[in-house]
Amino acid sequence: MPLLYLDYNRTTPTAPSVLEAMQPYWGTYFMLPEQQHWHATAIDEAVTEARESLGALAGCEGFEIVFTSGGTESNQLAIAGLLGTQHNAGRPQRGGHILVSALECDSVLDTVQRLARQDPSWTVEQIPIAGNGLIDPQTVEQMICGETRLVCVQAANPILGTIQPVAAIGELCAHRGVHLHCDATQLFGKIPVNVKQMKVDTASISSHKFYGPKGVGALYVRRGLAMEGIHGGDAGEMGLRPGSPNVTGIVGMGAAAQLAERFSLTAEDPLEELRDQFIARLEQAMPDPPAVIAAPSETLPNTVAIEMPDEIDLLKRSARDLVMNSATCFDPPDYFVRSLRAIGMTDRQIRRSVSFSLGWTTSNEQIERAAEWIAAAYYR
Amino acid sequence: MPLLYLDYNRTTPTAPSVLEAMQPYWGTYFMLPEQQHWHATAIDEAVTEARESLGALAGCEGFEIVFTSGGTESNQLAIAGLLGTQHNAGRPQRGGHILVSALECDSVLDTVQRLARQDPSWTVEQIPIAGNGLIDPQTVEQMICGETRLVCVQAANPILGTIQPVAAIGELCAHRGVHLHCDATQLFGKIPVNVKQMKVDTASISSHKFYGPKGVGALYVRRGLAMEGIHGGDAGEMGLRPGSPNVTGIVGMGAAAQLAERFSLTAEDPLEELRDQFIARLEQAMPDPPAVIAAPSETLPNTVAIEMPDEIDLLKRSARDLVMNSATCFDPPDYFVRSLRAIGMTDRQIRRSVSFSLGWTTSNEQIERAAEWIAAAYYR
Repeated sequence: MPLLYLDYNRTTPTAPSVLEAMQPYWGTYFMLPEQQHWHATAIDEAVTEARESLGALAGCEGFEIVFTSGGTESNQLAIAGLLGTQHNAGRPQRGGHILVSALECDSVLDTVQRLARQDPSWTVEQIPIAGNGLIDPQTVEQMICGETRLVCVQAANPILGTIQPVAAIGELCAHRGVHLHCDATQLFGKIPVNVKQMKVDTASISSHKFYGPKGVGALYVRRGLAMEGIHGGDAGEMGLRPGSPNVTGIVGMGAAAQLAERFSLTAEDPLEELRDQFIARLEQAMPDPPAVIAAPSETLPNTVAIEMPDEIDLLKRSARDLVMNSATCFDPPDYFVRSLRAIGMTDRQIRRSVSFSLGWTTSNEQIERAAEWIAAAYYR
Repeated sequence: MPLLYLDYNRTTPTAPSVLEAMQPYWGTYFMLPEQQHWHATAIDEAVTEARESLGALAGCEGFEIVFTSGGTESNQLAIAGLLGTQHNAGRPQRGGHILVSALECDSVLDTVQRLARQDPSWTVEQIPIAGNGLIDPQTVEQMICGETRLVCVQAANPILGTIQPVAAIGELCAHRGVHLHCDATQLFGKIPVNVKQMKVDTASISSHKFYGPKGVGALYVRRGLAMEGIHGGDAGEMGLRPGSPNVTGIVGMGAAAQLAERFSLTAEDPLEELRDQFIARLEQAMPDPPAVIAAPSETLPNTVAIEMPDEIDLLKRSARDLVMNSATCFDPPDYFVRSLRAIGMTDRQIRRSVSFSLGWTTSNEQIERAAEWIAAAYYR
């Protein structure tokens, strides 16, 4: 029995056309762009083309894209680079106030919390999330003070699917002269993205979230932004990211960006239709209709989080081939638990909750089968 | 005309059997090991197997291997992790003395130099290299003082090919209680490696130097060594390296490690034979015999650096399809220039110098053609 995979917000398969685009760079064009020969020139052009593709996907220029090893590194680079903490290590720190949304993933939250733990001149405050899963920009405005040096807001949450009003937050951060970093990894390949309209200074992008290879990511760095590299080494990627470029990965991510741009520009959204069909099916099949979490906020078209009539363990035991996202650890809370607690859910509710995220290859048949399995788990 | 590639110390193609090993992990097994389903278990096992393969290649246990995004990240992680500089940021620093060999690559040298620039409580001293390309362990012993907290010695230089007496240095570092980090990226796939015999605390490994994919590397971390992660995020890879694991890359690196182990265990070394044949051919073909640099030190079997009778520009113009390593920038000095200056060569000599590194697929015919081209460039 093949898996019924509904956890595409965690990771996606690499698209066949992406693999095909990568193919020449394993063998014939395996060299590095900095070498001195005519293949190196072709490889340099391929990397530039990938950079342009990422720019087109994110709504920025190619030269505003820095390639990294993934979304986690992009988040770390943005935060440490914007705060200049590496540069100031050991000197009297400027310190300051950092605002992070309560929905941030570990690579953002843990990075700023480590900083504050290690250096008391930094304070971190969490931006509260309303029950509908959203940040109120007015709250951010009230929380920004003279000491605030950075605001971190995730564009969309992989579990709830809720899309934050980043443009409104970006507007007020720009007005107050505070840097805004956005973990935008969940947007790409799902909805059209324009980092300029979002008015962010930096935005993280992860290849394997939109059918590109794992082990490669990017950071949008707004033109003219003063940022520091956080690592020693040669001056690759605007001096922000040293090391031999992962040419194959970069070319693959570029091809995936082209695919994602085409997909997210299609007027009709098949993922949203499928998702809504999934919810309708569940409501039909279950006498106690499951509750959609954070409804009716605007969400990613492929994502739905649901509170079931009973604990999710039942479902996990009876539908072992159904891959979804649910709580695995309450203490310390994993990211699933942390996200649902952030919108005010109790641990009892969280034990009944599950999140599904659909992908480009999810079919009607899979949706119906998933709904059947879920109903059967609770109403055998 | 295909390229005649003799720059394998810079990067190698990905071996076909490595690509084959990676194949299932793009599609069928594209998921992440931390997910809760039976494919995730298989993926977790594949990552563990790759870890064991790396351990077997390096002569350590699988659990002493941390996967990273490449050799550059491995070097940064080792240095910052061993010095605990991230942890101490903003607190009164312990500071101390760091010894690095004058042959270290940018990701080691620049990382420690940044540290010293940013925080005057750290001092960096370079270990001199003799004209034969080697470090004298006695010199290291004399340079170690009570304040010394870290010694960084590259195992083999990609340009000269010289192999440092790491075990002797490791012995005396252990005796003095000083950490030793070894950039061992050039050894793998060329000679048998045993990090335990080398008595190093940490050693960097880079996949694309031995026919594995780019964008993945590893760090050997000696069992029981106190080390700190340098980045925030989830607690992957012994808590030292957060982020979704690059499963495809890790599996590919594991397969390459298996290949490299088999290759480096063959009693006869075809690379050394080919290289010596190349030198002999050049000596026959050229009336003014070229001088092998750093002879007769022990070198990597695939590497030879040569001082030609005249400037290398001649050769580069006439043999555009021959890929080799030579100086590209004197101010600031690139790594080629820095390495040759370290053994006392003048810039005039460096302009006449070139380094060749052979690979597993280098043929007799290629060697003869390269020797012909080189002789023709100087004696038309």
